[in-house]
Amino acid sequence: MTQKVFIINGPNLNLLGKRQPEIYGYDTLDDVAANCAALGADLGLTIELKQSNFEGGIIEMIHEAREQAAGIIINPGAYTHTSVAILDALNAFEGPVFEVHISNVHKRESFRHHSYVSLRADGVMAGFGVQGYELALRRMAVVLA
Amino acid sequence: MTQKVFIINGPNLNLLGKRQPEIYGYDTLDDVAANCAALGADLGLTIELKQSNFEGGIIEMIHEAREQAAGIIINPGAYTHTSVAILDALNAFEGPVFEVHISNVHKRESFRHHSYVSLRADGVMAGFGVQGYELALRRMAVVLA
Amino acid sequence: MTQKVFIINGPNLNLLGKRQPEIYGYDTLDDVAANCAALGADLGLTIELKQSNFEGGIIEMIHEAREQAAGIIINPGAYTHTSVAILDALNAFEGPVFEVHISNVHKRESFRHHSYVSLRADGVMAGFGVQGYELALRRMAVVLA
Amino acid sequence: MTQKVFIINGPNLNLLGKRQPEIYGYDTLDDVAANCAALGADLGLTIELKQSNFEGGIIEMIHEAREQAAGIIINPGAYTHTSVAILDALNAFEGPVFEVHISNVHKRESFRHHSYVSLRADGVMAGFGVQGYELALRRMAVVLA
Amino acid sequence: MTQKVFIINGPNLNLLGKRQPEIYGYDTLDDVAANCAALGADLGLTIELKQSNFEGGIIEMIHEAREQAAGIIINPGAYTHTSVAILDALNAFEGPVFEVHISNVHKRESFRHHSYVSLRADGVMAGFGVQGYELALRRMAVVLA
Amino acid sequence: MTQKVFIINGPNLNLLGKRQPEIYGYDTLDDVAANCAALGADLGLTIELKQSNFEGGIIEMIHEAREQAAGIIINPGAYTHTSVAILDALNAFEGPVFEVHISNVHKRESFRHHSYVSLRADGVMAGFGVQGYELALRRMAVVLA
Amino acid sequence: MTQKVFIINGPNLNLLGKRQPEIYGYDTLDDVAANCAALGADLGLTIELKQSNFEGGIIEMIHEAREQAAGIIINPGAYTHTSVAILDALNAFEGPVFEVHISNVHKRESFRHHSYVSLRADGVMAGFGVQGYELALRRMAVVLA
Amino acid sequence: MTQKVFIINGPNLNLLGKRQPEIYGYDTLDDVAANCAALGADLGLTIELKQSNFEGGIIEMIHEAREQAAGIIINPGAYTHTSVAILDALNAFEGPVFEVHISNVHKRESFRHHSYVSLRADGVMAGFGVQGYELALRRMAVVLA
Amino acid sequence: MTQKVFIINGPNLNLLGKRQPEIYGYDTLDDVAANCAALGADLGLTIELKQSNFEGGIIEMIHEAREQAAGIIINPGAYTHTSVAILDALNAFEGPVFEVHISNVHKRESFRHHSYVSLRADGVMAGFGVQGYELALRRMAVVLA
Amino acid sequence: MTQKVFIINGPNLNLLGKRQPEIYGYDTLDDVAANCAALGADLGLTIELKQSNFEGGIIEMIHEAREQAAGIIINPGAYTHTSVAILDALNAFEGPVFEVHISNVHKRESFRHHSYVSLRADGVMAGFGVQGYELALRRMAVVLA
Amino acid sequence: MTQKVFIINGPNLNLLGKRQPEIYGYDTLDDVAANCAALGADLGLTIELKQSNFEGGIIEMIHEAREQAAGIIINPGAYTHTSVAILDALNAFEGPVFEVHISNVHKRESFRHHSYVSLRADGVMAGFGVQGYELALRRMAVVLA
Amino acid sequence: MTQKVFIINGPNLNLLGKRQPEIYGYDTLDDVAANCAALGADLGLTIELKQSNFEGGIIEMIHEAREQAAGIIINPGAYTHTSVAILDALNAFEGPVFEVHISNVHKRESFRHHSYVSLRADGVMAGFGVQGYELALRRMAVVLA
Repeated sequence: MTQKVFIINGPNLNLLGKRQPEIYGYDTLDDVAANCAALGADLGLTIELKQSNFEGGIIEMIHEAREQAAGIIINPGAYTHTSVAILDALNAFEGPVFEVHISNVHKRESFRHHSYVSLRADGVMAGFGVQGYELALRRMAVVLA
Repeated sequence: MTQKVFIINGPNLNLLGKRQPEIYGYDTLDDVAANCAALGADLGLTIELKQSNFEGGIIEMIHEAREQAAGIIINPGAYTHTSVAILDALNAFEGPVFEVHISNVHKRESFRHHSYVSLRADGVMAGFGVQGYELALRRMAVVLA
Repeated sequence: MTQKVFIINGPNLNLLGKRQPEIYGYDTLDDVAANCAALGADLGLTIELKQSNFEGGIIEMIHEAREQAAGIIINPGAYTHTSVAILDALNAFEGPVFEVHISNVHKRESFRHHSYVSLRADGVMAGFGVQGYELALRRMAVVLA
Repeated sequence: MTQKVFIINGPNLNLLGKRQPEIYGYDTLDDVAANCAALGADLGLTIELKQSNFEGGIIEMIHEAREQAAGIIINPGAYTHTSVAILDALNAFEGPVFEVHISNVHKRESFRHHSYVSLRADGVMAGFGVQGYELALRRMAVVLA
Repeated sequence: MTQKVFIINGPNLNLLGKRQPEIYGYDTLDDVAANCAALGADLGLTIELKQSNFEGGIIEMIHEAREQAAGIIINPGAYTHTSVAILDALNAFEGPVFEVHISNVHKRESFRHHSYVSLRADGVMAGFGVQGYELALRRMAVVLA
Repeated sequence: MTQKVFIINGPNLNLLGKRQPEIYGYDTLDDVAANCAALGADLGLTIELKQSNFEGGIIEMIHEAREQAAGIIINPGAYTHTSVAILDALNAFEGPVFEVHISNVHKRESFRHHSYVSLRADGVMAGFGVQGYELALRRMAVVLA
Repeated sequence: MTQKVFIINGPNLNLLGKRQPEIYGYDTLDDVAANCAALGADLGLTIELKQSNFEGGIIEMIHEAREQAAGIIINPGAYTHTSVAILDALNAFEGPVFEVHISNVHKRESFRHHSYVSLRADGVMAGFGVQGYELALRRMAVVLA
Repeated sequence: MTQKVFIINGPNLNLLGKRQPEIYGYDTLDDVAANCAALGADLGLTIELKQSNFEGGIIEMIHEAREQAAGIIINPGAYTHTSVAILDALNAFEGPVFEVHISNVHKRESFRHHSYVSLRADGVMAGFGVQGYELALRRMAVVLA
Repeated sequence: MTQKVFIINGPNLNLLGKRQPEIYGYDTLDDVAANCAALGADLGLTIELKQSNFEGGIIEMIHEAREQAAGIIINPGAYTHTSVAILDALNAFEGPVFEVHISNVHKRESFRHHSYVSLRADGVMAGFGVQGYELALRRMAVVLA
Repeated sequence: MTQKVFIINGPNLNLLGKRQPEIYGYDTLDDVAANCAALGADLGLTIELKQSNFEGGIIEMIHEAREQAAGIIINPGAYTHTSVAILDALNAFEGPVFEVHISNVHKRESFRHHSYVSLRADGVMAGFGVQGYELALRRMAVVLA
Repeated sequence: MTQKVFIINGPNLNLLGKRQPEIYGYDTLDDVAANCAALGADLGLTIELKQSNFEGGIIEMIHEAREQAAGIIINPGAYTHTSVAILDALNAFEGPVFEVHISNVHKRESFRHHSYVSLRADGVMAGFGVQGYELALRRMAVVLA
Repeated sequence: MTQKVFIINGPNLNLLGKRQPEIYGYDTLDDVAANCAALGADLGLTIELKQSNFEGGIIEMIHEAREQAAGIIINPGAYTHTSVAILDALNAFEGPVFEVHISNVHKRESFRHHSYVSLRADGVMAGFGVQGYELALRRMAVVLA
C-alpha cells in the first residue's frame, strides 16, 4: 500500500494563479494537485492536497496528518512568518516535513525573511515556482523510502 | 447602479459600544452600519458591513470583495498589528482600501504602532471615533467617482 | 449558587498527554477537566473547560465569559506570544484572569518569553505541569471570595 | 460668533501642487485654504491657514493658537518625524488637535513611520490627499460642538 | 523524617507588608513563614524561610541548601533581573527550584520582564500575591514525593 | 569688572509658568531672570537671560557668547534631544557650560533620556525646578573664579 | 529640632580624593561630610554621611532612612547603572531623593548613561564635582521647608 | 548543442562526505558531480562542478560563467552569510541562479540565517541533502528551456 | 550665459576657519567663496555661496534654487544627520546635488555617520577639507555639461 | 623624482564598464588608469593602478605600498563593508588614504552604508562616477605637496 | 623581597571542584592556591588567594591590593558580566591585571560573552581550565620583572 | 615520536614587530616561531608556524592540519571577527584548538569584541603579547598529554 503525503496550503493560496501572476505564476492549486498526484503515482506516494485560510484550520490538518500521513509538504503562506501555533502542531508530527514557498521570500519585505516553520522543517525551498511542490515530493520519496 | 463598498471589521469589534467606552465610545457596530448606509445613499454607494473574530474569516471577506465590491474600508482591530495574511489578501484586491481605527493607536502600547495593513492601504485614519468610518466613506466616494 | 470559572485552552492543547510527554506530561485535557471539577467543587466553584485551535474561537469563548463566568483561567498555548486580539478580548472582561503554561516557557526559545496575555492577567504561572491549573483555581477561589 | 480653527502647515508645504504631484497631487495650499474656508462656513467654523518652513515658526503659531483658536489641524511635514519641540508646544495647547498627512507615510521610508505629534494628537490621518484637511475639519466640528 | 524546603527571599522583602501595599499586600514575611510552616506540616515538609538584602547572602543561602534542603522556593526580588551569580548558585543545586514573585512583574517596567533565575527554575509564578509561596509549596510536595 | 554669564533658554520656555505647572511650576522666565540677577550680583557675575523657539536662534546666541560671555547656562528644552547643531555650536565655545532641565527628564518618555548637549556640558542637572538655574550659577561662580 | 538628611555613597567612593583626581578631584569623603555639615547647619538640616561598597549595605541604609531621615542625597556610584534593588529600596522611601554624580557620566562610556535611580529621584545632577552634594542640599532645604 | 550549467561550491565543501556526516551526509563532491552529470545528460544540460576555499576564487568562477554558462547553481558555504562581493559578482551574471545548502541552515546558529546570495538568487533551497543539487538542476532545466 | 550653482552651507559654518582648526582648517567661508568663484569662472559656472544657521533658512535657499540654480553643492553641517525637511526640499529640486563635508564624519561620533541628505545627493564627499567644495564643483561642471 | 600613488581596486572592478552601466558607467579600469596617469603627470605624481578579487590580494598590495607608495587611493568594492583585515592593513600604512566609490552607496541597500575603510581613510567619496578617482588624485597632490 | 600577587575569586568559586565538574573540573580552590604558590615561588612572586561571594567583598579586596599587591589575577565569576563597580575598583588599581575564566565563556549563553572587567584587564583568558591561573601568573612574572 | 602542533596566523601578522609596536610589540613572527620551537622541544611537541593573508589560505592550512597535526594554535587576526568559513574549517578538525590574540581586543573597537573562532576554540586568550603563543602551547601540552 502506498504512503500518503499531505500537501497543506495556507491563506490566500486558494487564489493561486488568479492574483499577482508576476509573483506567483498562472498555475492554480488544482493544477498543483494534479501534477503532484501524477508524480506521486510514479514515486509510489498518494497525495492529499488541502488549503485553509484559517490558522486553526491548518493546525487541525496537521493533527489529522498525525493519524493519516507519512509526511507533510507545507506552504504556510503568510502564517510562515507569524504562527508559533503551526510550528507547535508540526512539532507534534513525527514524519518528515518540507516547507515550500513559490516566490523567493528573501527578496521581498524583511518581515517575510523569518519562518517559524523552518525551525521544524527538514528542508525549506523558496522561489522554485509551483514546481517546488514537485521537487519537495521527490525528496519526500527518498526520505520515506 | 451604485457601487458597493465593504466595511470589514476585525476581532472584538462586535463588542463596540459595549466595552471600554472611554476608549471606543458608545456607538455599536449597528449604529455604524446605519450611519454609513445613510451617508452612502447620499454619496451613491451601497454599504455592506461585516465583522469576524477570525483572521481567516476576514481574509475570506476580502476574497469575496474581489468579486463584489469596488472598495474596502477596513478596521482590522488587533489583527492590524500581527496579520501578514490579511495584508496579502488585500494585495490581491485591486480597488481602493482605507484603514480606520477608532482610537488613536499611536498613543497606546508600542506594539499598536505598527500596521501591516498600512503597507497596502491608500489611506489610514486613527482617533476619529466611529465618525472615522464616515470620513473614509467620503474619501471613497471621491476616489471611486 | 456557585460561581462559574472558564478554563480556556489554546491551540494544540487537544493533544495534551498525546504529544511530547517529556515537555507536557501524560495527563490529557479530560484529566485536567476532571481534576479541576473536583477541586472546584471543594472550593465552591463550577468549572467549564474549553479548547480551540482557532484564535477567533478563543476570542469568542472570552466574549461568552463576559456573560457567564466570574473568572478565567487561560492557557493560550502558542497564541500567548502572538495574539494581540486575545489580549483585547481579555481587556473587555472584567473579572480575574490567571494565565497558566504547563512547561517553563522561559527555558525554551526566546520567542516564547514574551506574553501579550500577561499584560492583562492578574497572575501568570509556567512550569508547574498540569497541576498549574489547580493552583490557579485555588488562587481564583481566594480572589473571588 | 464662530470658533476659529488654525490649519498649520510645515516645511515645503508652500510648494504643494508644484512638486512631485504623483505623491502630493495638483492642489496648492491656496486651494486647500479656499476649500476649508467654504466647508468651515458650513460647519460654523472660521479657518486660518498658515505655513512655515521653520520649526520655531510652527512652535510660535501653536503658541498663538493658545490665545486665538479653539482647535488645531496640523500637517507638520517632515518635522512630524523629528520635532519634540512641536510636540511640547502642542502639549501646552488645550483644545483638540488633528494631524493630517497628504500621502500615506506608512508606505514610504521607515523614518517617516514615526510621528512625535501623534503622541499628542486626538486623531491622525494619512493618505487622504488634500481632502484630508476637510475630513479633519468635519471631525473638528463634531468635537468642538 | 520530613524533607526540608528553603524559602529564600531577596532584597527589600524584609519590608513586606510595610511598603507599597497596593502592590505587595499587607502580609509580612513572618506571616508568610507561619502560613508556609502550617501548610508544610500538612504536606510533610519542614520549612526554613530566610531573607537577605545582599546578593552574596542569597548565594550563600543557596550553597547551604546544597547540604540541608531538598528543594528551594525563591523570591529573588530585584536580583531576579540582574544577578547571573544567583543563577550560577542555583545551577549548582540539584533539587527542584520554584521562583515566586508576589506582583505580576510582566505588567510593570520592561526591565522587570527578564529573569535570570527562570533559566534554572522548574516553575515560575508571578502575581499570585503572598499566596504564591503556598501554591509553590504544593507543587514542591508533588515533585519531591 | 564682573564676568558675564549667558542663560540661554530653548523652545516653549517663553511659556514657563503658564503651561503645565504640575511639571514646570509657576515661576516665569522673568522670575528666573530676576532671581539669577540677584544671586549673580552676590557672586560677582552679570547675567543675560535669552530665549528662542528657533534652533538657529539658539545657535546664534551661542556664537554671540563666544564674544561676550565667560560661561553659558543652557536649558535647551526639546532641542536637547534632537539638535546636533547646538552641540556643534557649544563645541565652538571655550568657557564652562552647564545644562539645566527644570523637570527630571529621566522620569518622562524615553526619547527625553538622551541629550546631545550633555556630550559637551561640564555639568548636567534635571529636576531641581527653576532653582536649578541658581544652583548652576553657584557652580559657575566656583569654576570661573 | 532640625530634620536629618542622609548622604549615602556607593562603591569605591571611600577612595574619593585618592584615585583618578583628574575625574573626581582631590576632596575626600570626609571633606564632603564637613562641607555638608557646615552648610546643613546654615540651612537647618542635620547631615549623616554614609558609604558602603555593598549593594545590600546601601539598601539597608535606605531602609534605615525610612525611620530616621527626612530626605536622601545619594551618589550610588557604579550601582547607579546596575541596581534595580536600590531603586526598589528608594521606592519604599517617601521623602525627597536627590541623585548626585561627581563627574559628568554622560561624557563617559555608554553603560554609564542609564540610571535606575533616576526613575525614582526627584532631581539628578552630574558633573558638578563634589560641590554637587552642597547644591543638592540647598535644593533639599527648599523642598523640605 | 547543450547549455552549460556551473555548479559552484564554496569553502570546506572539498571535505564533503569526510566531515560531520551527521550534518552533511556521506556523499563526496565527486559523487555530486557524477549524479548531476548523469541527470544533466537526461535534461540536456552539461555540468561543470567547481570548488574553491577562496572568496576571490568563487568570484572569478562567476566571472567565467558570464562567458561560458547559461545558469549557475551555487552552494556558497559559509560565504553565504558574509560575502557581499559574491553577491555583486552574481549581480553581474544575467542567467538564472539557484542557491543550495545541504543542511537546513535555519535550524542552526542565528548567523547562518541570513544569506546575501538570496538577494540575487531566483530560488533558494536548504536541508534537502546533496539531492538538493539535483532538484535545483531540474528547476534549471525548466527555466532554461 | 553661464549656469548658476548654489553652494549652501548649514549651521556653524559661518565660524569656518575660526573654530577647531585641527578639524576644519584655517580657511573661512569667504575664502571658499573666492576659490569656488575663480574655479567656477574656469568651468563656465557662476557661483552663489550662502549660509544659514536655521533649518528653515536652508530649506528656503533650496526653494530659491528651484528658480535660479542649475545645481546645488550643499554642506548641511549638523542638519545632515537630523533634517528630513532638508531632504524633502532637495527632493523637490530637479538638478544635480552634491553633498560635501569638510572633515571625515565617519571617523567621528556614530550619530554623524548617517546622512538624510545622502538619500538624495548624487555624490557625497567627506574629509577632503575645504578643497572638497572645489572637487564637487569640477564634478558639477561635468554633469551639467 | 615623482612620488608614487597606488590606486587599488577590489572585487568585481575588473568588470568595470562591462556590467550594470546604469550604476557604474561605461569606462573600464584601463580608462581609469589612463586618465589618472595623465592627470598624475600634471600633478607630479606617478600612478600604479591594481586590482584583485581576493581580500588577501588587496592586503598584500597595501603591504607593498608600505615600501613603494606615498599615498593610496582605494576602491575596496564590496570588501568595504565586510573587511576588518583591509582596515588593519591600512592602519599599518602611514601615508594619506582616500576611499572612492563610483556609485553613491548610501542610496543602495543598507548593508552598503557602513565602511570599515572609512575608519582609516582621510577622505571618502561616493557617487562621483569614475571621475572620483581623478578628484581624489587632486586632493592627494595637495596633501602630499 | 618578593612582590605579592593577589588572586581574587568571585561568587560560587568556593564550590570549585565540587559542582558541575564537566564544566569546571575536579580541582578545588585550595588546589589552585597550592599550585600557584609553588609556581610563584619559582617565579619570585608571593601569592595570596582570596574568594568572596559578595560584590562588595571583591571591591574591598581590590582596594586592599592598592596597598599590598603589585598585580592582580582575577576570576570575577558571574560578576564579570554585571559589575561596573568591580571595573571601577580595578580602574583605581595601578598595577597589571589579568582576568581568568576556567571555562570558555564564549561557548555558553550570550549574557556570558560580555565582560566589564575586560575593559580594564591587560589580558583575558577563558577555557584554559584551572591551569589558566598558572599561565596568567607566568605572564605576571614577565610584566612585573 | 613527538606530536605536531600548527600555529596558524592570519592577515597582517607577517608585519608583526614592524607595525604599531605600541599595540603589538617588537617581536617578529620569526621570533615567535623560534620561541615556540624551543618551548615545544621542552614539552615534547613539534611546532609548525604558518601565516596567510588569505581567508582561503587559512582554511586550507586547517584542512592540512586534519592530516598532520594533533592540535592547532590560531591567531586569526582580523578574520576572527568576520569569518564563518574558518569556524567551519575548525569544526571539521577534531583536536584541541586554542585562539590567541596579542592585544586585548576587548579594549579596542566594538567590532573586535566578537569572535566566530571562539565558538569552536577550547580556550581563548587576548592581551598576553606574543608570550600568549607560549602560554597556549603549555596548555596544549597538558591537553595532548
